[in-house]
Amino acid sequence: MRTVDLIQKKRDGGELTAEEISFLIQGYAEGRIPDYQIAAWSMAVFFQGMTARETAELTLAMARSGDQMDLGSIRGVKVDKHSTGGVGDTTTLILAPLVAAAGVPVAKMSGRGLGHTGGTIDKLESITGFQVEQNREDFIDLVNKHGVAVISQSGNITPADKQLYALRDVTATVNSIPLIASSVMSKKIASGADAIVLDVKIGSGAFMKTIEDAIRLAQAMVDIGTEVGRETVAVITGMEQPLGRAIGNALEIREAMDTLRGQGPADLTELCLLLGAHMLVLGQAALTVEEGYEELQRLIENGYALKKFKEFVAAQGGTPSFIDQPGLLPSAGHSFTVTAPASGFVHRLEAEEIGICAMMLGAGRETKQSAIDLGAGIVLLAKIGDVVEAGQPIAELHTSLTDSSVLERIRERLLAAVTIAPEPASAPPLIYAIVTKDGVKRV
Amino acid sequence: MRTVDLIQKKRDGGELTAEEISFLIQGYAEGRIPDYQIAAWSMAVFFQGMTARETAELTLAMARSGDQMDLGSIRGVKVDKHSTGGVGDTTTLILAPLVAAAGVPVAKMSGRGLGHTGGTIDKLESITGFQVEQNREDFIDLVNKHGVAVISQSGNITPADKQLYALRDVTATVNSIPLIASSVMSKKIASGADAIVLDVKIGSGAFMKTIEDAIRLAQAMVDIGTEVGRETVAVITGMEQPLGRAIGNALEIREAMDTLRGQGPADLTELCLLLGAHMLVLGQAALTVEEGYEELQRLIENGYALKKFKEFVAAQGGTPSFIDQPGLLPSAGHSFTVTAPASGFVHRLEAEEIGICAMMLGAGRETKQSAIDLGAGIVLLAKIGDVVEAGQPIAELHTSLTDSSVLERIRERLLAAVTIAPEPASAPPLIYAIVTKDGVKRV
Repeated sequence: MRTVDLIQKKRDGGELTAEEISFLIQGYAEGRIPDYQIAAWSMAVFFQGMTARETAELTLAMARSGDQMDLGSIRGVKVDKHSTGGVGDTTTLILAPLVAAAGVPVAKMSGRGLGHTGGTIDKLESITGFQVEQNREDFIDLVNKHGVAVISQSGNITPADKQLYALRDVTATVNSIPLIASSVMSKKIASGADAIVLDVKIGSGAFMKTIEDAIRLAQAMVDIGTEVGRETVAVITGMEQPLGRAIGNALEIREAMDTLRGQGPADLTELCLLLGAHMLVLGQAALTVEEGYEELQRLIENGYALKKFKEFVAAQGGTPSFIDQPGLLPSAGHSFTVTAPASGFVHRLEAEEIGICAMMLGAGRETKQSAIDLGAGIVLLAKIGDVVEAGQPIAELHTSLTDSSVLERIRERLLAAVTIAPEPASAPPLIYAIVTKDGVKRV
Repeated sequence: MRTVDLIQKKRDGGELTAEEISFLIQGYAEGRIPDYQIAAWSMAVFFQGMTARETAELTLAMARSGDQMDLGSIRGVKVDKHSTGGVGDTTTLILAPLVAAAGVPVAKMSGRGLGHTGGTIDKLESITGFQVEQNREDFIDLVNKHGVAVISQSGNITPADKQLYALRDVTATVNSIPLIASSVMSKKIASGADAIVLDVKIGSGAFMKTIEDAIRLAQAMVDIGTEVGRETVAVITGMEQPLGRAIGNALEIREAMDTLRGQGPADLTELCLLLGAHMLVLGQAALTVEEGYEELQRLIENGYALKKFKEFVAAQGGTPSFIDQPGLLPSAGHSFTVTAPASGFVHRLEAEEIGICAMMLGAGRETKQSAIDLGAGIVLLAKIGDVVEAGQPIAELHTSLTDSSVLERIRERLLAAVTIAPEPASAPPLIYAIVTKDGVKRV
């Protein structure tokens, strides 16, 4: 088999066989096939696409390229959840204990973040004593004992995907549905998921900008799941404005606790209940989404969700006292508010830009080497549709930065991401569609 | 400027500016832009094409990447000629002295070949004493004194094109009209041509398989010429069977002499007269193609063409005695004939396959390191349309190989490239179309 012939076959619209895809991915991972050939192949895929079968084979080839977690010794159906980016997305922190409280085992490997805030792992490190590094045996024990564990992704999951992603990033081939879909799904499959719930975001703060693109991506991922025997459901959700109110590591931990006690922001709560309900159905803990939704509401109301969160934190070595005394969480050096420049209705809160402001305040990493200020970030005091008076605080900024010209720049950038106008505005939709193996249901 | 943005611009169908193309090509040549980005960009060009302006800018950027010959001190319009590959193509050897005899200066840099036979430079080295290496001053002196010189391409002509071509070869991006066109034209421009006549071949032995593709390629090259102020004419010619009868280095020198004395094969003679006539028009030595054609016929008939060939050989240090005694040319160890397996008409003489047989006999290089057997090759004794009797010799094979099983394999391969059938066959067309800046004229 010659790589150049496989590039040409894809270039000319042919369908690669499992052997051919395996040859490419294995050869690339092992250094036998050079970057330039995979770059040309990726661009050919950008133009010609891939069939569902090809995309599934690519997913499996990447999953096979590194370690594959065997979660077989954990009782029950292991349902994983993945969000395709977004700003202020605290769902994993809420869903892990919430779904576990309903009896679905959550064995989650998560990453550190490069972006507006840290990843779930960084957020958990806001909790004193919390151990994100666990070996495989302890990880499985934790899940079997407590129903939930969230650990830092171990060394060598899908190295071929990492390598391919880095290449796509510099060759303008990121934006290809089959390549995005296989990248996401390969990690979930290598991590041992039996079933997967996906949160595909659209809007200014998300990777997919239109509902059509998001549905195509969701379908590609659901198709992969079907091809490889991992039932997959995708919920298409809006990311026109940040989800919830908090953007920042410790700030999101606090928001997660509020949500688990039933006092969280409406949009974040609603999305967690919906994603969680689908997880319960896939995990065979509920017969219907409605039943799952009501069960999760009950678990919040009766305090079991927050109790499971405490148990989860303590099991991984964390000190749960912050749950009742949030002041124990890391906090930034100081905070100040940004006020509304005019009276009216909030029409725009551009997620991407607000995320960048949070990063500039210290909440996220610009490069892999940057340190995160766990206490830094933004709490939005108004959201799209809200009415505000001129001079009223619309955001609380937390930071350890002291340079007033830098802070002024951030304040200006934040204000530029906000539009306030006299005519009434309504909150943008939160849920757009649900994609399952049976088709697309628009909401 | 970021390379990834330029790849994306081309991927999305945008037109790159002169600065952007220059940034890519210069960056690539200087090692600042890696192979994988240029591979992705080339694949994007494969799908999105390039405008005439972009193609011209790419051509100029590649021409600028290395040495550029200044032929300004040669009197007259320097007209270069290029053929896009083919089998048994002896035209340069004939055209150089023929056109020079008509008063158009020929200052040609040529290459060694990788393929069925050597290149023009290898063929000239069949002549005892012939010096293909000349410094720039001597080269220009030779042309000013004798009207013609053919030398080996100097060190550093269009290095960016060489680098890009090598990359395209392994990334399935060779077959892109703007990339082929700019590759050919960049070399001609860097070599100092004022005007260019192109011979674009189609058929089994050529790169372009259909008349439509050949016309598109020809138009792209003519457009580049127009954009950069080098008038360019392209003749689309057939390469269903080898051109002329000889395929091999010394064998083609002999055929060139026969043609210059008016005793060459009809197809080769006709093609040389036509290409030469266009060169005379571009070189302002004839007002019309018809006038140029007749002038060249006269120069063959009155012996001036052969006389100019002698002068050319002697001026570059060659011993011209072989012209009257062809036995002085290198010859292979032995020769044998292949005979017609049946009586009938020749329907097929597959150029590519016959070229490979000549290479196997020793006439060409399989790798850059291979040595050429200057005497080896094939002389076709029948061509498409000819009537043959079973047992009649149809080809003469010259070689220094002695392994009878290898020779038998070559003989079988040659016979497999020939079809003889009872029904009459006609010779395939030689000239299909002529493309100039004024449009396409089908013949």
